[in-house]
Amino acid sequence: MNYGIVSYIIGYVLKFEAAFMILPCIAALIYQEYSGWAFVLSGLLCLLFGLALTRKKPKNKIFYVKEGFVSVALSWIVMSVMGALPFLFSGSITNVIDALFETVSGFTTTGASILTDVEVLPKCVLLWRSFTHWIGGMGVLVFLLSFLHMAGGSHMNLMKAESPGPTVSKLVPKVQSTAKILYGIYVALTLLEIIFLLAGGMPIFDTLCISFGTAGTGGFGIKNDSMAGYSVYLQVVVTIFMILFGINFNAYYLLLIRKFRQAFSMEEVRCYLGIIAVSILVIAFNIQDMYSGFPEALQQSAFQVGSIITTTGYATTDFNLWPEVSRTILVMLMFVGACAGSTGGGIKVSRLIILVKTINKELHTLLHPRSVRKVKMDGACVEHEVVRATNVFLIVYVLVFTFSVLLVGFDNHDLISNFTSVAATLNNIGPGLELAGPTQNFSIFSGGATLVLTFDMLAGRLELFPLLLLFVRDTWRKY
Amino acid sequence: MNYGIVSYIIGYVLKFEAAFMILPCIAALIYQEYSGWAFVLSGLLCLLFGLALTRKKPKNKIFYVKEGFVSVALSWIVMSVMGALPFLFSGSITNVIDALFETVSGFTTTGASILTDVEVLPKCVLLWRSFTHWIGGMGVLVFLLSFLHMAGGSHMNLMKAESPGPTVSKLVPKVQSTAKILYGIYVALTLLEIIFLLAGGMPIFDTLCISFGTAGTGGFGIKNDSMAGYSVYLQVVVTIFMILFGINFNAYYLLLIRKFRQAFSMEEVRCYLGIIAVSILVIAFNIQDMYSGFPEALQQSAFQVGSIITTTGYATTDFNLWPEVSRTILVMLMFVGACAGSTGGGIKVSRLIILVKTINKELHTLLHPRSVRKVKMDGACVEHEVVRATNVFLIVYVLVFTFSVLLVGFDNHDLISNFTSVAATLNNIGPGLELAGPTQNFSIFSGGATLVLTFDMLAGRLELFPLLLLFVRDTWRKY
Repeated sequence: MNYGIVSYIIGYVLKFEAAFMILPCIAALIYQEYSGWAFVLSGLLCLLFGLALTRKKPKNKIFYVKEGFVSVALSWIVMSVMGALPFLFSGSITNVIDALFETVSGFTTTGASILTDVEVLPKCVLLWRSFTHWIGGMGVLVFLLSFLHMAGGSHMNLMKAESPGPTVSKLVPKVQSTAKILYGIYVALTLLEIIFLLAGGMPIFDTLCISFGTAGTGGFGIKNDSMAGYSVYLQVVVTIFMILFGINFNAYYLLLIRKFRQAFSMEEVRCYLGIIAVSILVIAFNIQDMYSGFPEALQQSAFQVGSIITTTGYATTDFNLWPEVSRTILVMLMFVGACAGSTGGGIKVSRLIILVKTINKELHTLLHPRSVRKVKMDGACVEHEVVRATNVFLIVYVLVFTFSVLLVGFDNHDLISNFTSVAATLNNIGPGLELAGPTQNFSIFSGGATLVLTFDMLAGRLELFPLLLLFVRDTWRKY
Repeated sequence: MNYGIVSYIIGYVLKFEAAFMILPCIAALIYQEYSGWAFVLSGLLCLLFGLALTRKKPKNKIFYVKEGFVSVALSWIVMSVMGALPFLFSGSITNVIDALFETVSGFTTTGASILTDVEVLPKCVLLWRSFTHWIGGMGVLVFLLSFLHMAGGSHMNLMKAESPGPTVSKLVPKVQSTAKILYGIYVALTLLEIIFLLAGGMPIFDTLCISFGTAGTGGFGIKNDSMAGYSVYLQVVVTIFMILFGINFNAYYLLLIRKFRQAFSMEEVRCYLGIIAVSILVIAFNIQDMYSGFPEALQQSAFQVGSIITTTGYATTDFNLWPEVSRTILVMLMFVGACAGSTGGGIKVSRLIILVKTINKELHTLLHPRSVRKVKMDGACVEHEVVRATNVFLIVYVLVFTFSVLLVGFDNHDLISNFTSVAATLNNIGPGLELAGPTQNFSIFSGGATLVLTFDMLAGRLELFPLLLLFVRDTWRKY
């Protein structure tokens, strides 16, 4: 392990975090809130640690996959610990584990909350909560990449470790330029949503928070009823943008460079939109008796489906009360997740496509033992490495999931609450069913269970391996 | 597809089934039950169809993996349809789908029942139910192999398709002799259990039924309270034999040929016994307040753990009422299942070992990208084919599981009932939790859901691929 470079990167992340905390400070100034001091103090601490860690440039430039994974995992942990300080300093959350859970939930764009009443929080704290979604959505290290000049392989290895999905495709030859393009699209889409929401008469503060939450597919609400109180127009706008932020950003890049046919023929995007369309229709038929008619059922269904599959987690209705089929579909969508290369979580549509194609390939091999067949996607062969990594991902995923459910089980809540709370955190969604349902919150869990769920959120956002690698002794061997 | 040989094999299976039906006929004679005619009639029908299908020997001797899979899948389906006739003819079950469910549940050694009161059934019907467990446990085609002389590759391909586990090891060079040895051990262990149970004062009829159920790891009870009414001695004997029948039969063969060290060092068996020991202890501590003391809790825990991990499904207590941790452990054990090469179901311990070792290998590759590392088991390298097939097994398993839960969900029972009823059938266990719990039965499900669960039982017993292959068009192409 190249300790020098890892701590250097963490130092830079902290300096950026200090910069990010300026936004809530400004909000505190505008709304004249005393809690602003919590951010000033936390920001200064971040800056102090950041400066200390970046004091001298590391000499050793070695940067393998391992360094990428460890840098990302540790950066996210350190970032979350520091990001939790404002909650504690301002007194918004008094328990350390809870504050950490809330911050990790923010950065990992989960949106699960331990707060029972968010409406009493100062506006600067609410803004910080939502802003963590936006920061975590596209990734802090990807952000860092677009600014920082670093040695050879480090860019790609960092990007691989932080970006969601089975593969990372560079849009342009330079990783740094790719990062810039991605953030450009991200900022543009966020601005677009802000404009549409403002046009619907949403207050500017709400607009910012909701847009940050949608863009990062996070889901922290600023009202206790999440999104239920907003007008139908605003709900529809959010529905559309949630779904847009769940699309692979490569598609937007292809649109930008006018490769329309390629953009519209992306297998993953088509499959993603197909799943959404079918789910919306089935659920709408299933729940229409509960609403004023099919149109309302359709709108409610679309919002919830969009919210769950993109792993955002906003809610406009208590879907915990829906019939079992609709609930089951939502639980299934929790696992599907959004597209790779988007801000959404879950297993990712492209992984599922690879998995299903692997089955096809295996059946074909059974029928024709001597034939050689490759898994293809968008016309190109998927590398054997990627297929294998995807298979292993599923194994690790199932194991982490199972043990989390077992550990959370020691709290002695019902099995559905345990199961869906793990599903909601490991897939970075937010609400689950029953005690973890959309009208409930995660404050019911004990400290131990909260830590397990915190781990799951990080493991889900970083896609398991970076976090897992921290537990392997070989990782820490000095060169 | 070599249609000739497939129908020839099915014909033979039917002739054997006719022979198997002699046992309930004898029981009917002894107990003077009129229902015996149902078996005479069904047996004659089996014989008739069997003779028709085996009238002429097929000329085409081609027998690939595909033929093995299809023969096994179709044999099991045909066998189940014919095996359901006695239930219908005797009037014990009036609904066709229910009768099919009950028979498939028998042959696949699941032990889930749609009957609400088994004590009113004629003894010959009860014996047939339990006997189907014994027949299905070791496999009908394996049985057939030890008698029938067939062309070249067919033996191995049939054995591969029907035997549970990621690999099939021939104990001796000839497949046929292997089949004979396996059945020898099977019969011997069954007899041993019968002796031990008789020694505890169990009536001879009960002894036969319970032993058949234990040997096949089936779990059909002949009392409405399953095993709760029997003495502690009898429960302990059954506990031990359930666990014994879940052990890889290769271990017994190694013991027989006096390779003790090899037998006791089998990784899968050690891991299997380790999981059992840990689970029993954790649950015993967790439930001790519910029983008279730790010894009783230990005995109850041991019985239920043995019953669930071996996928037998007998119960001596209503574990649905246990605290959430114990319930969660039981649900986890449902998926683990017994050893490969045993009569138990589930994912199988050896598959889990391979999966976990694959993760290790992947982490190692991440740390040392240029090193080559192989997955090893019992000191030998696991073939790449087997590792890949195991990975793909997990994918298919998860997909079949998910869609089953969704389809069963249309009945609008609670999610735990749906989830555990699929777990209990796909893993060939029997009871699940809540509405599918040990004191309940599967009669609550609609016809559609019952068919889905019936499919799951077959898919679980035949380990997915044989059944899946029936749905691929390429399978049915004529040569």
